[in-house]
Formats: sequence, C-alpha cells, structure tokens
Amino acid sequence: MNPIPPSHLLDALNWRYATKQFDPSKKIDEATWQVLEEALVLTPSSYGLQPWLFFVIKTPELRARLRPHSWNQPQITDASHLVVFAIPDKIDVPFMDKYLDRIAEVRGVGLDSLAFYRDMMLKDVITGPRSAWSKEWASRQVYIALGNFMTAAAIVGVDTCPLEGIAPLEYDSILDLTAKGFHTVVACAAGYRSADDKYASSPKVRFEMSDVIQHL
Amino acid sequence: MNPIPPSHLLDALNWRYATKQFDPSKKIDEATWQVLEEALVLTPSSYGLQPWLFFVIKTPELRARLRPHSWNQPQITDASHLVVFAIPDKIDVPFMDKYLDRIAEVRGVGLDSLAFYRDMMLKDVITGPRSAWSKEWASRQVYIALGNFMTAAAIVGVDTCPLEGIAPLEYDSILDLTAKGFHTVVACAAGYRSADDKYASSPKVRFEMSDVIQHL
Repeated sequence: MNPIPPSHLLDALNWRYATKQFDPSKKIDEATWQVLEEALVLTPSSYGLQPWLFFVIKTPELRARLRPHSWNQPQITDASHLVVFAIPDKIDVPFMDKYLDRIAEVRGVGLDSLAFYRDMMLKDVITGPRSAWSKEWASRQVYIALGNFMTAAAIVGVDTCPLEGIAPLEYDSILDLTAKGFHTVVACAAGYRSADDKYASSPKVRFEMSDVIQHL
Repeated sequence: MNPIPPSHLLDALNWRYATKQFDPSKKIDEATWQVLEEALVLTPSSYGLQPWLFFVIKTPELRARLRPHSWNQPQITDASHLVVFAIPDKIDVPFMDKYLDRIAEVRGVGLDSLAFYRDMMLKDVITGPRSAWSKEWASRQVYIALGNFMTAAAIVGVDTCPLEGIAPLEYDSILDLTAKGFHTVVACAAGYRSADDKYASSPKVRFEMSDVIQHL
C-alpha cells in the first residue's frame, strides 16, 4: 500500500462541506460510483457483523416522494446519488449465522473453528448486554459507514451532504423497507456542488483544536 | 482540490484491518499524528455541533490501567496512540451557544444573524424531539468521527483498531472524565501492525455487495 501524502488528506477534508446545492446536471460517473459503493462495503464494523443495508435511490419518482419527508431539502432530488442507510429489524441468530457462513466461505475454514467467536457474539449482541439496545448499536455502526463514506467521497472529489433531517418511518414506507425487514437510520446525498452554493466558500467552523482534543 | 485516484482509496481501505497486534516499537511521527488530529477536528457532525471531545492517552501508566477494563486487549498498551472518544454529559444551551459564538467568530457575523439557526437547534436537540435521546444522538456523531478517523488513518498508512469492548464507566473514572463533564463512548488504537499479526493477511470478510447494497 502506498500511503497518500497527509497534505492531500487534509486538502480533501477541508474541501468537503455539507453541500446544500448540488448541480443537478453533474452526475457521478459509473466507475467512481462503483468505488464509493466498494468503500461502503469495506466499512469496518463491530465484530465485522455489518448490520446494515445501503439503498441507492436512483428512481426520480422515489426521490421526489422522499423530498417532502426531508424538510423539502433540494439535495434529495438534485444530487447525483442518494444513499439511504438502513439497519436490519432484527440482529438475531440467523443474521449472525449468515455472517459466520460468510467468514467460513471467504477464509475457507470450518464453522467449528468459529464456535468460540460465535459464542462471544451470541452472548453479547444477540442474547447478552448489547441485545437490549442492539438496534441503537447497529445504528452506531451505520454512522461509521456514514463517516467512511463522506471521507471516501471527499478523497475522490465527490461532494456529499449527510441528511439526518428525514422522517425514517415515511422513508421505510415509501421505499418499502419494512417489508424487506429494514429500517431507515440516516441518508446521504452525493454529487457535485452547484456554482451557486454560497456555503461552498463559507469558512469551515470547528472548535479550536484545544477545545476538542486533550492529551492525557 | 486534486482528487486522489479512486484506486488509491480502495487500496487503503483493503489494506486496513482491525489490527490485533501492534508493533510497540513503531511510533507515529509527530507530523503524521498532527494530521490525524486535524482530521478528527474536521469530522462533519449534525448542525456542525461537534458534540465530542477526543482524549489522546499518552501516559503509559494510564494505558496500563485502562487495559484490564478493555478485555485486556494488548492494543491498549502496545499501539503508538490511543484515542478515547467522549461525549459531553449535557448537550445544553451553553454548549449550543458556545458553538454559535464560534460560528460568529470564524465567519465574522453577528449573533443576530444566527437567531434562526439557533432556534432550529434549540427546538430540536436542546428542548425538542432529539433532546429525549441527545446523548445517543451525540454518540452517533462520535461514530462519524470514528469512521472518518479510521479511513483517514488508512489513507496515510496508519493502522487502527476500533475498541468497543471497553468499560466506559471505568474509563471515565480512570481518566477523570466525569469531573470534566464527559463520558466515554468508544476508543481507537492507532500505530503500526506487528509483523506477527496473523490477521493482517487474513482475507477480509464482507458480505457480497448484492447483499448490502440495493438499487431502488
């Protein structure tokens, strides 16, 4: 792996901002989008369990129906791509076993060799302490994916806007997620900023480093 | 901004893994670490509110005391750096107003011009729907920072290991966070993988793309 010069990383993170106005005429090309989907898939998660499903909303009619349930934010319809980050309704034994099957397949090992790992997950996420709040735990994992996605997009020069101001239940209904066994957590629009977006040139507001980082 | 070739991004994301064994002799140099701290500070958050504090634990004695409350994971003591991600105990009016003061300072605008924005945050996060679960909401923001941090680190060739298996209350006590008004959410070790870490060469396990991404 050839590391990228650290200054490039900071350039990208300073360049990114929560894009309010996307240029509807500028689309992310298929090769670049494919990389961003791969980046989503590669997101780290606790136990590697990947308790998520990413819905890429391409149909303009669906985007138009989502917009009124998103404070009418134009990013919903104007951005090149819209990703809805969802969690499964149940983090249960079948879900865990699907993951263990996948480990066995990818690593070419027997399920018996994963018995200890299975037991650890079972007694934490499925029946143990985390089971009481496993949906919230899954939602946190989704936010790792959101963070990874926004950074990855910036790195390759794609603008994003994270969207928490959406009505998850309306999204579930419009996208038929309930029937699929999933629930909306958050969304993110991706594309290219409009030349008219005044926020693009507004100085980025962050607390002083000494206010958010302490060395102990 | 010069975008980085998408293949470089994927190389970095494929290279990264949850490092189990760090090489204790390899330290992140000061310039690279500074960039990673800046990356943390640049993390996006809802409303831009940055409901977090990042504690970089340098003191070996503190690291040794944290380890037993982290399932004795060696990353806690062996990694070059350890970051504890914390949220403020209260997301309240003073916290919000500190942020508004900062916007006014950075953008050179009057607080009166931010009245609408203040009202929107107030009626959501401070007294509105999100106030009932503002600590969990803040924790989710912290996970954006975690996702951003792990991706940023991989981009510059630094290994990380996210650590959810820690005892937050013990961390709060050892690091004296309660007295500072903060609460531990998650941690992340950073440094360089040991040549002995067999997980470094294990094939990465992810569900098939078609199992986690759907196009609608």
